[in-house]
Amino acid sequence: MKIEGQSFRSIWVKDEDETKVQIIDQRYLPFELVIEELSTLDDFARAIREMHVRGAPLIGATAAYGLCAAIREMDPESNLSEEVEKAVYYLRATRPTAVDLQHATETVWRSACRGSNQAEKLELAKAATEQLVADSILQCQLIGEHGVKLIEAISKQKKGETVNILTHCNAGWLACIDHGTATAPIYAAHDQGIKLHVWVDETRPRNQGANLTAYELAQHGVPHTVIVDNTGGHLMQHGMVDLIVVGTDRTTRSGDVANKIGTYLKALAAKDNGVPFYVAAPSSSIDWQISDGLAEIPIEERTDEEVKYVHGWFNGRIYKVLLTPHDSPAANYGFDVTPARLVSGLITERGVCAASENGLSELFPEMSKVE
Amino acid sequence: MKIEGQSFRSIWVKDEDETKVQIIDQRYLPFELVIEELSTLDDFARAIREMHVRGAPLIGATAAYGLCAAIREMDPESNLSEEVEKAVYYLRATRPTAVDLQHATETVWRSACRGSNQAEKLELAKAATEQLVADSILQCQLIGEHGVKLIEAISKQKKGETVNILTHCNAGWLACIDHGTATAPIYAAHDQGIKLHVWVDETRPRNQGANLTAYELAQHGVPHTVIVDNTGGHLMQHGMVDLIVVGTDRTTRSGDVANKIGTYLKALAAKDNGVPFYVAAPSSSIDWQISDGLAEIPIEERTDEEVKYVHGWFNGRIYKVLLTPHDSPAANYGFDVTPARLVSGLITERGVCAASENGLSELFPEMSKVE
Repeated sequence: MKIEGQSFRSIWVKDEDETKVQIIDQRYLPFELVIEELSTLDDFARAIREMHVRGAPLIGATAAYGLCAAIREMDPESNLSEEVEKAVYYLRATRPTAVDLQHATETVWRSACRGSNQAEKLELAKAATEQLVADSILQCQLIGEHGVKLIEAISKQKKGETVNILTHCNAGWLACIDHGTATAPIYAAHDQGIKLHVWVDETRPRNQGANLTAYELAQHGVPHTVIVDNTGGHLMQHGMVDLIVVGTDRTTRSGDVANKIGTYLKALAAKDNGVPFYVAAPSSSIDWQISDGLAEIPIEERTDEEVKYVHGWFNGRIYKVLLTPHDSPAANYGFDVTPARLVSGLITERGVCAASENGLSELFPEMSKVE
Repeated sequence: MKIEGQSFRSIWVKDEDETKVQIIDQRYLPFELVIEELSTLDDFARAIREMHVRGAPLIGATAAYGLCAAIREMDPESNLSEEVEKAVYYLRATRPTAVDLQHATETVWRSACRGSNQAEKLELAKAATEQLVADSILQCQLIGEHGVKLIEAISKQKKGETVNILTHCNAGWLACIDHGTATAPIYAAHDQGIKLHVWVDETRPRNQGANLTAYELAQHGVPHTVIVDNTGGHLMQHGMVDLIVVGTDRTTRSGDVANKIGTYLKALAAKDNGVPFYVAAPSSSIDWQISDGLAEIPIEERTDEEVKYVHGWFNGRIYKVLLTPHDSPAANYGFDVTPARLVSGLITERGVCAASENGLSELFPEMSKVE
């Protein structure tokens, strides 16, 4: 997608030798565009650990490139298999709960194992990484192609008047490699010339909506308005939202959706006001082992610092300011679960389906048989 | 209520002659306790206009004391009636939409009119102001006495285990003179020794929950936890909320409630999870002229600055930091309407009633006949 008129991805190879990878250091968004160059294993590990990059697919890709760097750096005289394994566990320790990080390093590791020397291992790891990146982009693109039909239909119904879409958090291209998940249909519609406008929930406590989604949309030229998380219900009551599209961190086989805290409240308001509520759910987000999201998905509790403080821009730098009494405790639940009964449909890379076991098993028959 | 162990009101007369009134300059809360002395008409007007004080009852009381000050300052040779009228309109212009400000100045003005000279006018104005303040405190106290029964009943049902109460925004004593409205039952229960804990919604954009409600509760010694506005739904899904009590800015004769933006979302989650949702509604908040809150209550749109920026504490001072891209637009709706069907009951100074025309007319038969 675009920044200042130029096409960007969230991570890209700089040189032909693929020894240098660049990322956007997202800690400075939306205030400054800082491009960072990563070349050593430590660079990649630090970028993940200190959240220069975030978002499941982007973390996965960064770790994959990091593993390539690790192989390149190895002493050819060392026990290469052992060293690769060490690098994999080093990278995995940077964000222990990120499932995509586990998957991506697994995939690249397996490929590297097939090489009999360092040069071969490196080539195989690079190829696996490129494939992984290409797959991730394609998955988002397909979600865009399927999801855009929902927006087209509303636009037609409204006779070309502006379609108002609400989104929560950042399931955008900055969390992926390109397109994003929830944003893919929005970018596709915008690029097709459909008139639309996006309500951007700021998404406390980490403000990924205000910081990242608003930045993405502004840079790509998509009309949007930032709102506090309290506002969506009022907008829906007054017919100012035509469609909600959000991402998902984990989707059960029955269609329950664990996503950024606050998603459930918007789904309730959507139901109460007859607003379609869709979830962009790449198949990688579906956990076929579980059915009951509320009972079975553990909700991460994060540091109270994210609630008590906020990061903002003043006089050319980022400040972290206190919002509460010094001694007041705060609680910080990262996600909530939206039951399938509130979800109008799931937008996957294979098409749109009902948020139910039946809906999902029609699109993914090979997976739904897993018990 | 208490600050650092001392009993406080949000406004009080300092000296016996009543020439000096003191307030807490609430712009510095929760970071610093700044007591400000007001003595001239201009002092009072500035305190209202620049929001050293906020909250309908407190604004009304401040204006009433301000009108007393205006009468004291008058040139005895001037046309006193004309001068009093001028002062009333000067005070009303400081917050043109605050209904309590209109009422309070009306009440004091009428009393002053009955005086035939400056001294009489001043005495009558002072008496009317003291009456107004006493009535306001009594109204909150009665809401506390009626509301505490709800908490007692839950505490009994839970066999004395902690009762978890969620509140939104600040309908606390800092918005009133003492006790508060939504907080009155909480303080009453706490002072009776009932074990309770309050979930405090931070209440973006102006963070009155994080800044004021948390401060009030902390200072009075009430166990509480600050949460972002996105969190309540998750807590209710997991049985972590026993009761919701919020305030109201305007209540229709049919029981619809206009309150701080985001209240509606919490009411939806309460309904979905069987959590009782009560509104502390002093009769002064009831607008007997209107029935349909959604259609008839205009919702104030405030400056986008409140969404784009936040005030916080860093290194001994308050900073105003930017949260969004510089050029992203933001929308700022001040209130939303919670339909009566989501409200378990209204806690008024005359008792608790159903949020309905019947419920209200049983408690206020003299008003419900107004067409």
